[in-house]
Amino acid sequence: MKLLRVGTPGAERPALLDQDGTTLRDLSGLVTDIDGELLADASALALIRAAADAGELPVLDAAGVRVGPPLARIGKVVCIGLNYHDHAAETGAETPAEPVVFFKAADTVVGPYDTVLVPRRSRKTDWEVELAIVIGRTARYVEDDEDPLSYVAGYAVSHDVSEREFQIERGGTWDKGKNCETFNPLGPWLVTADEVPDPQALSLKLWVNGELKQNGTTADQIFPVAEVVRYVSRFMTLYPGDVINTGTPAGVALGQPEPKPFLRAGDVVELEIEGLGRQRQELKDA
Amino acid sequence: MKLLRVGTPGAERPALLDQDGTTLRDLSGLVTDIDGELLADASALALIRAAADAGELPVLDAAGVRVGPPLARIGKVVCIGLNYHDHAAETGAETPAEPVVFFKAADTVVGPYDTVLVPRRSRKTDWEVELAIVIGRTARYVEDDEDPLSYVAGYAVSHDVSEREFQIERGGTWDKGKNCETFNPLGPWLVTADEVPDPQALSLKLWVNGELKQNGTTADQIFPVAEVVRYVSRFMTLYPGDVINTGTPAGVALGQPEPKPFLRAGDVVELEIEGLGRQRQELKDA
Repeated sequence: MKLLRVGTPGAERPALLDQDGTTLRDLSGLVTDIDGELLADASALALIRAAADAGELPVLDAAGVRVGPPLARIGKVVCIGLNYHDHAAETGAETPAEPVVFFKAADTVVGPYDTVLVPRRSRKTDWEVELAIVIGRTARYVEDDEDPLSYVAGYAVSHDVSEREFQIERGGTWDKGKNCETFNPLGPWLVTADEVPDPQALSLKLWVNGELKQNGTTADQIFPVAEVVRYVSRFMTLYPGDVINTGTPAGVALGQPEPKPFLRAGDVVELEIEGLGRQRQELKDA
Repeated sequence: MKLLRVGTPGAERPALLDQDGTTLRDLSGLVTDIDGELLADASALALIRAAADAGELPVLDAAGVRVGPPLARIGKVVCIGLNYHDHAAETGAETPAEPVVFFKAADTVVGPYDTVLVPRRSRKTDWEVELAIVIGRTARYVEDDEDPLSYVAGYAVSHDVSEREFQIERGGTWDKGKNCETFNPLGPWLVTADEVPDPQALSLKLWVNGELKQNGTTADQIFPVAEVVRYVSRFMTLYPGDVINTGTPAGVALGQPEPKPFLRAGDVVELEIEGLGRQRQELKDA
């Protein structure tokens, strides 16, 4: 299923994208919202699926409606850094021996077509297309003989917007350049895991002002999705409604020759992952 | 006012500690909970204050009741690293030129007397007593001529439990050693800012098994509370109900000679900040 949330910020209603790929169906008669509680509730999800299959869900007029992030009440957003061979190479970093973990605050999450703000005093705002994992079941010290993917409710396109000067040149950890307002567009859809049989076989693309900048595949991930879930669960507990951004392939501004083409107000970024939909953001000054 | 939340985890009710320092008063007839929404609502806070002054609040039977964290629905927990001259010195780090920022997830927050879990495979679980700031008003690019303390609703004791191997020796940023389950006891009280006239004149103490380990003062902070709020607001937006842990003074296990006395199951940690109350946690294995 492709779940989404539409409406004004903070007042989105739950919806489903029909199998035809264009019709929106209203879920607000069945569930209050799309959040960790719903994702942990197999019977509620089965109810949605049955109603969809039976053609019982009312059509939602999608004309002019805003699409919000596909998940409400996100707990934490864990991020994996340098998780593609080609991206680690372009930044000059060594291939990490184990996953690099940093955080985005859930309040940075916006809808897939919302405005992204270039922070004040920013000179190095950069793009990163990423595959996001959405957790559906509490994952705590996942054992070697367990299937980590059984904790994953679904997947989404995530834009891990990054300010490189704040991240790298201002002392301390990366979090300082990862948590500016609007820095994590998510969506358009939360695609349930059953529709993503192999999360390591997805192409990821990102364009700036129509020019293709990133063109990668999750097959190039140093630590695949399953390993990431297992690894992270041994340092912190993952709860339903938590998100993991699993890293970005090569092609970010940071990796390009001087003068590096960092983002400015007026730029348009589009990003797409196979089967998970497409985002588009215009940049504005904060 | 000293606000707190009592009851079983997830079902705490709001309460007030009387001026006598021992009687608990029930606030559940006035407000649903103590959270960012309440802290941003001056008239609701005035209502509590008036009812308390008039002696109208019912007494709450405190016998055997658990104390939860004094704040519900915490947005994000921003942490400042190496923010005391004496602690920076003991870790061998240079005095930072600007605040070091890292994150704890809100789901690590537990009550002040709750059990703290030593993570599996942990060998270097460490203590850190910290002054926590609780935000009461959205702070976004706080200007030089504004008073950053006007964004602060109150203060609390915070225990920034840390796993040093996970934090420092496992690649990437500090977050990996800061986000284990139960790693942020908070409280017992949220003390409103009017009762803390000078946040830079508070003594902080921490004991392990009755032995005094940390004995510092916020006067030693490299970046005082006001500067921290202003600084952080220029990298991320702070919302009501966000928390900032402002760093720890010297005396952590990491700073001591080998063999460093890291925490184990059975250890008892107590911590106290002048005017903000005292915590006590027993360590157990996760």
